[in-house]
Amino acid sequence: MTKSRDTQIHKLVNKLINTERTQLLKSILEPLKPVEIANILLQLKLKQQLVLLENLDRETSSEVLNNLQDSPSILGDIVEQISTDRLSNAIEDMPQDDAADFVGLLDDEKAEALLEKLPEKDREELTNLLQYDEESAGGLMTPYVVAIRRDQTVATAIKEIQKFVKKEGFELFYTAYVVDDHDHLIGTIGTTELLLAERHKLIENLMNPEVVAVDQDLDQEEVARIAQEYDLVVVPVIDKHLRLIGRITLDDLVDVIVDEYNEDMGHIAGTGDEEVSETSVLRASGDRLPWLLVGLFGGFLTAIVMSLYENALISLPDVTYFIPLVAALGGSIGIQSSSIVVRGLATGAIQTTDILVRLWKELRVAFLNGIICSFILAGMSWYLTDDVGRAFTSGFSLLIVVCFAAAVGSTIPIILKRMNIDPAIATGPFITTTSDIIGIAIYLGFAFNVSFSPLFSS
Amino acid sequence: MTKSRDTQIHKLVNKLINTERTQLLKSILEPLKPVEIANILLQLKLKQQLVLLENLDRETSSEVLNNLQDSPSILGDIVEQISTDRLSNAIEDMPQDDAADFVGLLDDEKAEALLEKLPEKDREELTNLLQYDEESAGGLMTPYVVAIRRDQTVATAIKEIQKFVKKEGFELFYTAYVVDDHDHLIGTIGTTELLLAERHKLIENLMNPEVVAVDQDLDQEEVARIAQEYDLVVVPVIDKHLRLIGRITLDDLVDVIVDEYNEDMGHIAGTGDEEVSETSVLRASGDRLPWLLVGLFGGFLTAIVMSLYENALISLPDVTYFIPLVAALGGSIGIQSSSIVVRGLATGAIQTTDILVRLWKELRVAFLNGIICSFILAGMSWYLTDDVGRAFTSGFSLLIVVCFAAAVGSTIPIILKRMNIDPAIATGPFITTTSDIIGIAIYLGFAFNVSFSPLFSS
Repeated sequence: MTKSRDTQIHKLVNKLINTERTQLLKSILEPLKPVEIANILLQLKLKQQLVLLENLDRETSSEVLNNLQDSPSILGDIVEQISTDRLSNAIEDMPQDDAADFVGLLDDEKAEALLEKLPEKDREELTNLLQYDEESAGGLMTPYVVAIRRDQTVATAIKEIQKFVKKEGFELFYTAYVVDDHDHLIGTIGTTELLLAERHKLIENLMNPEVVAVDQDLDQEEVARIAQEYDLVVVPVIDKHLRLIGRITLDDLVDVIVDEYNEDMGHIAGTGDEEVSETSVLRASGDRLPWLLVGLFGGFLTAIVMSLYENALISLPDVTYFIPLVAALGGSIGIQSSSIVVRGLATGAIQTTDILVRLWKELRVAFLNGIICSFILAGMSWYLTDDVGRAFTSGFSLLIVVCFAAAVGSTIPIILKRMNIDPAIATGPFITTTSDIIGIAIYLGFAFNVSFSPLFSS
Repeated sequence: MTKSRDTQIHKLVNKLINTERTQLLKSILEPLKPVEIANILLQLKLKQQLVLLENLDRETSSEVLNNLQDSPSILGDIVEQISTDRLSNAIEDMPQDDAADFVGLLDDEKAEALLEKLPEKDREELTNLLQYDEESAGGLMTPYVVAIRRDQTVATAIKEIQKFVKKEGFELFYTAYVVDDHDHLIGTIGTTELLLAERHKLIENLMNPEVVAVDQDLDQEEVARIAQEYDLVVVPVIDKHLRLIGRITLDDLVDVIVDEYNEDMGHIAGTGDEEVSETSVLRASGDRLPWLLVGLFGGFLTAIVMSLYENALISLPDVTYFIPLVAALGGSIGIQSSSIVVRGLATGAIQTTDILVRLWKELRVAFLNGIICSFILAGMSWYLTDDVGRAFTSGFSLLIVVCFAAAVGSTIPIILKRMNIDPAIATGPFITTTSDIIGIAIYLGFAFNVSFSPLFSS
């Protein structure tokens, strides 16, 4: 929509910075939203990024820095060049949950220097938030919640809300939480509903007692899954004693979902954590190299397996023609099974106890498609070699390879998950490499040791 | 969290249905939320699913059916068995946007019969919503919005909200939209803020004039991207004349993001639109087979390329040892480049005009990693064949293959996007297959036609 405009503005900003026309620069940036400025900034070089930030007012510069959290490597370079004073100002202006994440991105020394500069109240709250694992509900929440009591009237509850707003300002909030005498979360009520209700009514008669809340230590992906499942726009967070301690809004969870998605795509495609906006060729290469080495190592093992069959390969060179096909098909089936399992494990549709059920299903699917592919391969082989027996051998061995790949692809992610390793790592290069080596070994083993030719030549 | 409980309840429900103990069944289902009942239902067979639905009250059964929209093939089987009367009741109870999607899933005949059963007002609204492309902002929005005027006082505006709530009930809403005399959207104000404001103030002095809104025809993925970029919890929808016509809440957009994610994963892994919860082996096989056929066809072309080198392969069998490695590495690099480009195109970080910029970057990354991999391959080849010249040839040809794969992987998705084809289709099987064939052709061409041996034997 605004893409071509973005590119134009970026070029213009670049020019104004280089020619030091700061007044014009400011007037161009002024009407833009922080996220738009952040997007422009991402396309500049470090030196220009710093000039751009200097030409923003304090509040905007804080919001722009906050937006850069999605590109940690670029943010890291910028943060190194900014004074602690300016950083602590920026952090003071951020919402608490974002401020905690921001400080979490810094190295310990810088983080400590920063915390010391903050007003005591902010420092305490931030230190409190920093104790939670960054990827848990506690690390994601903001500690400001409107909490009212069940035995209050609507009129009293509204006073609480007004007090809250006076203290914390109008950060968006939509739900007031109802707690009992021990701060236990026992119900919710929409603020709109509350404000429109008759003033003398009791909260406990209006509240919705069906609350879904998450534990402070719950993993953020699980929180996102729950929010999605129950269509929640705000998720309350409780501590071990079921006391309400904060809330997470859906827009933060969307970031979790998108991050998780990018992480999975990175695993399956072998690009690791690389950011799309990464501008350093060296860094991008480094993120991708490990996955290539896996393939290289697998290829070496395959080469050794093949070298064992040297004499056979000379006498029957056409056996080699289908080696890439067998490897590709084994790899494809392996990835199909593993990605379905990884996705199911992520959404909770597949559980780690389902290993045999899933194996059985994936084997049947692979067998069905394997039969079809094997017949086609047999046909191709017959066409190229004119030998019915060998065509039969190729087809049969492909079927074995395919079933084997399905077994590996469906079970390994579940086993990894049981061992608390991210199962997404098993999709992509690892599965294809494993399927390649074993597939080719099976294929060659069959091709040179099993022959159905006598069946056809008698 | 509740996984083991889920499995237990599912077994219990299954048993109660089979033994026809409906009273106990009802009492077990009663405290569960619709989404939880839907999850149990997904694990049952069709006959039992229908019994389960019969034992729910009208409202819950509507919500359960609504939740099943994520598993369209299962929902399709159920809908075929339910009377039009019951379906129209269920649709009447759904939020308008979900109802429209639900009707959109049915075949035309069933949909028409259903619409006729609905009260006139519902039918009109639904027909109105159905005119939008299901995957556009219009198809995603709910047409109920609280619209107030800039020249109203807070007191008058609150009366509008009360009227709205009286008419439509307390569906969650957080933002009131400010419109001018022509229904143009000109500002927003949070309902909490509005209700706490002094009653005599004018709306135009309180409203936030910076509105982000989306066009009715904007693709839902783009809507999700905008909501994420601007951290919106509700996105207003406008028509061609900039008039406010509805709103989309973030929880619906989360479903879009997750669907998109599953679709991309399906493309890259070659499982198509297959659902994890799919229980039919035949259907799962059908979803995956086309991607395997792509690999099979590619493998056949590779076999033909190799057969052209038959005599050479007999005289130098060790050249074949590294064919799987070259194919795997070419495929990996192709997928790395294409997945980064596909991700960037999805988030807007890469634009279709960036083709040369991106190609240049991907080529440099591939060249860098290609150099490293080529040296390793040359080392392996030397180790296995003891021929420096040929080792050099293998390494050099790998470098060419790798750069070629990067070029294909980075440009094809952009070209597809320009042609309005989903670029995600170019990750996975298509890219690996293309890289395989061309990679092996390049490798063999080099291995048998170019020799660096004289350099080392002189």
